Amino acid sequence: MKTEREKENKKEKKIDLSLYLVTDRRLLQGLSLTDLVRKAVYGGVTVVQLREKECSSREFYELALELKKIMPTEIPLIINDRVDIALAVRADGVHLGQSDLPVKTARELLGQEAIIGLSVENLKQLEEALHLPVDYLAISPVFPTPTKTDFSSPAAWGLDGLRQARNLTELPLVAIGGINEENAEKVISAGADGLAVVSAICASSDPEQAARALKEKIEQARKKKN
Amino acid sequence: MKTEREKENKKEKKIDLSLYLVTDRRLLQGLSLTDLVRKAVYGGVTVVQLREKECSSREFYELALELKKIMPTEIPLIINDRVDIALAVRADGVHLGQSDLPVKTARELLGQEAIIGLSVENLKQLEEALHLPVDYLAISPVFPTPTKTDFSSPAAWGLDGLRQARNLTELPLVAIGGINEENAEKVISAGADGLAVVSAICASSDPEQAARALKEKIEQARKKKN
Repeated sequence: MKTEREKENKKEKKIDLSLYLVTDRRLLQGLSLTDLVRKAVYGGVTVVQLREKECSSREFYELALELKKIMPTEIPLIINDRVDIALAVRADGVHLGQSDLPVKTARELLGQEAIIGLSVENLKQLEEALHLPVDYLAISPVFPTPTKTDFSSPAAWGLDGLRQARNLTELPLVAIGGINEENAEKVISAGADGLAVVSAICASSDPEQAARALKEKIEQARKKKN
Repeated sequence: MKTEREKENKKEKKIDLSLYLVTDRRLLQGLSLTDLVRKAVYGGVTVVQLREKECSSREFYELALELKKIMPTEIPLIINDRVDIALAVRADGVHLGQSDLPVKTARELLGQEAIIGLSVENLKQLEEALHLPVDYLAISPVFPTPTKTDFSSPAAWGLDGLRQARNLTELPLVAIGGINEENAEKVISAGADGLAVVSAICASSDPEQAARALKEKIEQARKKKN
């Protein structure tokens, strides 16, 4: 099942997806976004995705610039959806959903070096994604999430779905949706290369410690595997 | 008051701003967006700006692609706000508001050939814009509009404000906001190089005729001036 495209992508980039923070300013417990990111990165986050769905382009751009300034060079800054913002702040890449720009178009605009991730909500989307120039896939959502419970939301993959996804591709997989300290080990054991979290870190009163605790679970799960 | 930047811009591009359509799908009277644009262009529209604030990136991109396919080459297609969409469909340029990406950033991403317009809502913004790499300014709103009556909306420039703006710059000026067949001549006489309209064409049951009628008013006003 490994396509030529997958082989090429695996060759090109090394991204540590272990603990992937997706930002949501609305959840912050009195911290600024930059302070949250500082604490989360210090606690062990390995990728930061800026996701801001409800602000102007200018505000999004300014937030992205701020983050870009404080990010350690080894931690990729990924911009949700907006290829122009990623280009404008020289972010490391973009994360695309199924209703964002097509992956091929984003790749043309961003070039081969950029990291491009894509959320897949079901097997059909995953199979389509195997032919696209993506660097990783987000299995979304792996568990139902409190913010996504309406009927239009996609069904959760579950751990079985994640295992199935793992068997279908060697692309790096990050799981997102309802992940916390309790289920983190199971998600890694089921085949995820990394955990993407929003509220587990953003809504924590101690984001650094929250990141550290998740990171430990990931390490534990990996040790058991080997 | 003419800056070096203005002189350069005037040299570089010739855009006929006379009748500038800004799209709003919500207003269409049973027409598809492409049919509206076909009719409006046939009726005399000289620029088309795709403005879609409430759709996904993918949908915006697909609408832009559709328009790009049907636009006559001599009529510029301008994308509202989204530099990435403009790049993705090779549109002729972007129109930026004050809360969109900074003009200089957009210029860096789009290159010198692209058309970049900027909405200015007051004299301060206009004066700032004279130092920016823009190709035209939109005087916004010239009249109060039914869709912008809340307290957070900027005050209308009025015809006197437009005349004042005209005296401050030789940059091409397009007036927008509440323009219709009745006031079109006055707006041109007050110094606008073109009229930007949304509802006067989009909400018309006969967009082709609406465009033609506006175009005639523009011609009449120009004849009186000379």
